[in-house]
This record gives sequence, C-alpha cells and structure tokens, in this order.
Amino acid sequence: MTNRPRVLIIGGGYAGIMLAKGLRNSPFQVVMVDRHNYHAFQPLYYQVATGGLEPDSIAFPLRKMFARQENYVFRIAEVQQIDTENKTAHTSIGEISYDYLVIATGAVTNFFGMKEVEANGMSMKSIPEALDLRSLILQNFEQALQEVAEGRDSLMKFVIVGGGPTGVETAGALAELKRHVLPNDYPELDLRQMEIHLIESGDRLLGGMSEKSSADARKALEDLGVHIWLDTRVTGFDGKLITTAGGEDFYASTLIWAAGIKGALPEGMPTESVGRGNRLQVDQYNLVKGHEHIYAIGDIALMAGGDAKYPNGHPQVAQVAIQMGKTLSKNLIRLHNGAPLEGFSYQDPGSMATIGRNKAVADFPQGLHLKGLIAWLAWMFVHLLFLIGGRNKLVVFVNWVWSYFTYDKGTRLIIRPFKRKKVAEPAAQGV
Amino acid sequence: MTNRPRVLIIGGGYAGIMLAKGLRNSPFQVVMVDRHNYHAFQPLYYQVATGGLEPDSIAFPLRKMFARQENYVFRIAEVQQIDTENKTAHTSIGEISYDYLVIATGAVTNFFGMKEVEANGMSMKSIPEALDLRSLILQNFEQALQEVAEGRDSLMKFVIVGGGPTGVETAGALAELKRHVLPNDYPELDLRQMEIHLIESGDRLLGGMSEKSSADARKALEDLGVHIWLDTRVTGFDGKLITTAGGEDFYASTLIWAAGIKGALPEGMPTESVGRGNRLQVDQYNLVKGHEHIYAIGDIALMAGGDAKYPNGHPQVAQVAIQMGKTLSKNLIRLHNGAPLEGFSYQDPGSMATIGRNKAVADFPQGLHLKGLIAWLAWMFVHLLFLIGGRNKLVVFVNWVWSYFTYDKGTRLIIRPFKRKKVAEPAAQGV
Repeated sequence: MTNRPRVLIIGGGYAGIMLAKGLRNSPFQVVMVDRHNYHAFQPLYYQVATGGLEPDSIAFPLRKMFARQENYVFRIAEVQQIDTENKTAHTSIGEISYDYLVIATGAVTNFFGMKEVEANGMSMKSIPEALDLRSLILQNFEQALQEVAEGRDSLMKFVIVGGGPTGVETAGALAELKRHVLPNDYPELDLRQMEIHLIESGDRLLGGMSEKSSADARKALEDLGVHIWLDTRVTGFDGKLITTAGGEDFYASTLIWAAGIKGALPEGMPTESVGRGNRLQVDQYNLVKGHEHIYAIGDIALMAGGDAKYPNGHPQVAQVAIQMGKTLSKNLIRLHNGAPLEGFSYQDPGSMATIGRNKAVADFPQGLHLKGLIAWLAWMFVHLLFLIGGRNKLVVFVNWVWSYFTYDKGTRLIIRPFKRKKVAEPAAQGV
Repeated sequence: MTNRPRVLIIGGGYAGIMLAKGLRNSPFQVVMVDRHNYHAFQPLYYQVATGGLEPDSIAFPLRKMFARQENYVFRIAEVQQIDTENKTAHTSIGEISYDYLVIATGAVTNFFGMKEVEANGMSMKSIPEALDLRSLILQNFEQALQEVAEGRDSLMKFVIVGGGPTGVETAGALAELKRHVLPNDYPELDLRQMEIHLIESGDRLLGGMSEKSSADARKALEDLGVHIWLDTRVTGFDGKLITTAGGEDFYASTLIWAAGIKGALPEGMPTESVGRGNRLQVDQYNLVKGHEHIYAIGDIALMAGGDAKYPNGHPQVAQVAIQMGKTLSKNLIRLHNGAPLEGFSYQDPGSMATIGRNKAVADFPQGLHLKGLIAWLAWMFVHLLFLIGGRNKLVVFVNWVWSYFTYDKGTRLIIRPFKRKKVAEPAAQGV
C-alpha cells in the first residue's frame, strides 16, 4: 500500500499494541492481524467468568485504539503458515507480505498432552472461554436443583487446577459467590455443600511470588473455605472423576484448568527456533534465533541469556510484554536509521494477586510485601490503570464499587448456554 | 412443595415479573419458568446490536430479583406442552403441575411465512440475536475491506424492514455509526457508500404514534441520511437480493427484520382460544377463552372487547404487560378471597421513540407531542427508570454520557462471530 517498509505484527495483545503504538510517526507501515477485533485484558477474565464483570468492559476495539495512527492497518485474520523464505504470511484472508515480522501471538492453555482433561475441563484464555465458564457455573446450580444427592454434590464441587494468580483469583471469586451471592439465589440448595478445591503441583501457591505472599494467599483462601491441595498433580478427568498422581480422587462436574500455558506458535517456524514451553528463542533484541527479519515479543518469546537478570527467560506476564513491545519499537526505528540497538532489560514493577474483598497480596522490588486491604486497593488501582479505554475503566470501577457495597456480583447471566462436550447435557439448553 | 395453591408463570418478561411481584406475601406459591435465567429489557436490544451497550447491562438475573420473596420458585425450562386437562405443563425439566397457569410468553418475530427471509434475515427478539447482529455488522465492514466494488457495496448496505420503534431506532443508530464512528474505524473505506434503507409497508413510520411523530421521525432520519421507503412490502431475500412487491430490488448482504411479531404460543392450547396474531383471546380478567384456570398477560394476550378503550386489543408494548401483570396479581388474590374482581383498563402513559443524539419523538395522553432534545431526554429518563437494577441503570447511564461527549459507541466487539446460514462465509471466523 505504501513504499514504507512493512512491519507485520501477529497479535493484538499487550506486546503487539505497545509495539504498534511505538511505531507511530515512524518510517514503517504497521500491519496488525488478530483473530479478534479487540484487545482483551486477560488478568480480569476470571471476573467475567464469575459474574463480576461484563466482557465488553475488559475488551477494547483495536481499530479504535489506532484510529488516529495513519501508518496502521488492521485485519481480522488467522495466520495459517509463515513462509520465512518469501517473507510472507499465509492467512485466512490471503497472503500478507512483510519486511519485518513480529510474532506476538501470546500463549495458549497447556494441557500437557492430557486429551481427556482438555476435552472435559474448562479453561480461561479467551473471552468466549470465560463466558462459557460463567454459563457453566450457573448452569451447574440450575441443574443441581433437579438432582438427587450424588449428582448434586458433583455439580456443586469446583476443582481448580493451578495455584498461580489465575487459579488463586478464581478460587477466591468462587468462594465469595458461595458466601455472599449463591445462598440468596438458591435458597433450595444447602450451599455448605458447595466445595471449592484448589490443586497445585508445586509446594506452594503463587510460585512466582514471595514466600510471604504464598503463605498469606493460602491463609486468605482457607479463611474463605477453599480446600488447598499442594504437591498434587492431576492426571485425568473424564467429566465426572478427577484423578491425581497421589491417588486422591474428586467426584466433580467442573474442572477449571489454570495449570499451564505454552507459546501459541504459528505454523512455519523451524523447530530449531523453538525452545522450552513452545516459545520462540530470541536474542537480547527479541530477534528470533536463526532469522534476520523475524522478532518475537511477549509470552511467546523466550529470551534465555539475553537479559542478565533473567538467564532462563522472563515470566509470561503483561509487564514483560509491554516492555518488550516498547523496546522493540525503538530498536526497529534505530535499525532503520542505522543507529546502535539497545538490548532488552526487564524492569520488574512487582506482582500481585487478589483473593477477595479486602484480601490481596503484592510483592514489590526491594522486597516490599503488602497484604490485606492496602494490597487489595493497590491491585484495583493497578488493574484500572492498565485497563485500556476510559469507558472501560469507568464501567469496571462502577461494577467494583457496586459489588463492594452490595456484596453482589451483577452479571450472573447465562446468555449463551455452554454445551458440555462429553458428559450428560446440563438441564438448561434454552436458546 | 407447599400446600398453597400454585400459580405457574411461563415467562420472565415484564408481565411475568410484575405478576410474581404482586403475589409476594400472597397465599399462593409462585413458580416461574423461563428459557433464560434473566429478565431482559427489549427496548434497548437495538443499542446492544449497534455497539452502544453491553448485554449485561440490560439484563437482570431473575433469581436475584426475587431473592427475598419466599413464595417464589424459579426454574430454567422450556415448556413443551400444556396439558390443560391434568393442569400440568410438560417441560424440558419434567412435569410441573399448577392450580393456576399464567401464560406470559410474549411474542416472537413474525416472518409471515417467508422462510427465505427467516433463513437469511436478522432479527432482534433476544439478547443472543442482538449480539449476532452486532457481530455481523462489524464483520461486514471487516469483510468489505477484502472485497472489490460489487461485494463491498452489498456488505455496506443495510436494509431494515419495519417502520415501528425498533426499525426507526435501529436505522437511527446505524446512521450515527456511519457518521461518527465507522469513518475513524475504517479509513480505507469510503463510508459515503454505506447505505441505510428503512422499508415500511404502511404509509408512515411509527404507525402506532401520532402523525406528528411520524413526520418528525421521518425528517430526523432523512437528515441522518437514511433512505425511507413507505408503502413498500418485502417479498424475499436470498442472502444477496431483497425483492419487494413493487418491484424495487436491493442488493444487500444484511436485512434486519423488524416488521412483525406474533404470540409465542405454547403447545397444547386449543385453537379456539387463539385469536389474531397468534395471541390468546382473554376476557377482561385476562382469563383465556374457554378455560377456568389459565390466564394470559402481556404480548401474548388479546383482550378484544374487554377494555372499552381498546376494542381490538392492546398494543404489544411493555406498559400493557406491566399493568396486566399487576392487575392479575390483585385479581388472583381477590379470587382466592372470594372478593369481586376488577376488569383490566389500560392507562396509556404515552409512547416514544429515539432517532439519535438530541433527536426523539414522544406522544403523551391529552395530545401532548414532544420532539428533539426534550423528547430525547425524556426517552432516556423513562428507559433508565424502567430498566431493572441499580447497577444496570448506572452502567447504562455511564455508557450514554460517555457516548454523548465522545460521539463514540464503546462496545464494537465481535465476541462470538456470527456464521451466516446460507450465503458465503464472512472473512472473520476466528475463535
């Protein structure tokens, strides 16, 4: 479309959008493709799934984000194959050539090859998946009303696998539904029979955070009635029975899988470029190993050794993606101008996880650890800050304030009923 | 569950919920079934479809609405057959017996037997349908980017059939998208080529309102660039070509059908109870003709002759449903107490329709007619008033204020891509 060199960005997550923004007013043409027409804020998926937020408030249209950036072109497309030789991406809408390719495809759920768990478990790596989980949680209670004891117990038992932030936050949100919301909605059910189990294969929750945060999160969840199983590895789930390596079994209808991710690798990248976790090995400039015009940023990038503080690569979190996107935009401009490049160096702003009202944990650099109300307020502040769009911030804020004072979650709606794949149909299948 | 006489209400629309509320603290047990777990506010579906509102803000969980009403029981269920002899409803979750049955099932889209239009046209009688339409509108523009002239024209042409409030409001909202939003989102397209056609078979728009309102609405829409076709009857739509009785053809990908509704009649009601528009004939107490324990209220009820001011039945609007639900609740209690019943008499509070920012029309009793800014403010006030739930009111208000000052519609998200039934697949089919 222009004679400017073209940067093709695959993915409109944080890495992709920060790169595209950084290339505003640059000599490049920026072409972005994504399967969706929006950027979504993954850290709040769990609140969509547990009826606390509407999906529309945590997603932002990509076209709107770049409406005033004249060198930006967007297309909804799925990349089917990258042809590194001809510098072309084959996509669902045809071929797109590039001068520089930036792979910012993020990560997908990793079931570690357990097909049965994948078929029967729920995951939360997209907005439709979060909505499916919301529907299923509510459908379970609707169906429980129609069941006798055994089936009812199973429908009211929620097993969350993975003790990272997603697992911890989901367990906390479910515990609050159990405490404040569901007893009013389902007076016919004895909500004491609702069980929430959080299973972690490691020896502590929030393994990426401090020991203090792990301990505080554990205590906060246990106070909310969540059953925590450490050093426990799930091996199977047929839709009814969850099995573990240690021999503990859980009869539960719902398994929420938050135990692992892997790089969302596009087809066509040679295997020698791929490293641990299905991620693309990159150097300190995010250049993919063995390529001269292909970069990878965000969750898909594995920068082992490039950043002195992170010899084994960076954590797969939003802040790394944001900083990699920004740095790469500067380096591409430097490259174009023949200026020396600057290697990536991650500035960790800290990490946090919320458990429930007035309950959160936060670790900051220099060893500062916060918990309780102040950590919870910090968590909300930071999440509102990084959520994109003034309307979104306002709507999320309204929802949070409303929930805080009413002890309610406002969006308990089964808009599109979820149809289970293998096990018996839930009661509610209305259109 | 109790020895109280059971009132089974089918449908959680306005008629059903006002009846159930009126039976609070009554001697009855109230059992409500609905296909959805929420009450939805139909007058704002068009704003969901045109990216102005999130669906979660115009729907309210039925369980929450009645959380403190101890004689209320809710089930998600579809009624398959009513067995009037055994006073039982056969449903998707089993048999439900009743002492009194109240049919409050509302209305569904009426395609007047045109299967082809039904298969290829879009309607807006449920939240999932409104979301499908939102997706399709956006998908059309995404696909238009990939097309040459002819296909592009067809994708950018929107034909709305039906000049009632839904058709008028949808046409106005699309015209505002064309004017304020889409040119920023799609700088590659020439938005002057986007056409919005509103087709009405009668000789004026808003046939249920005053002549002044019809004329004002027509002028306001024409000012926004909407093409209006009166006395024009659509006869077919194969997914590409819309044909009319007068011989005008429209090559358009999208037909939005807002031209008629019919009663959502449950199976099992004898044909002699059914009147015009597939509605159930009721007397002045909303008792269904030929039955002693079956009532019908709201859009499904046809009270011909029962209400002196409305000898041919009432308009199928929310206010009639609200008042019928309230009146029936009082009459059922009177019936139980052996007190004399009171016939239904509709108090028309007026009617209104909005065209766009600062543009609306309103007719009030005693012949008062409003237009422009004041009618528009009145429209917003009344809609916020009748929208159920404080959180919903607040979120809708935030969206409206935000849109007013930014000239933007915030929720242009293709969350679940719509798959057309017959015609070619749209470009975007990402998960």
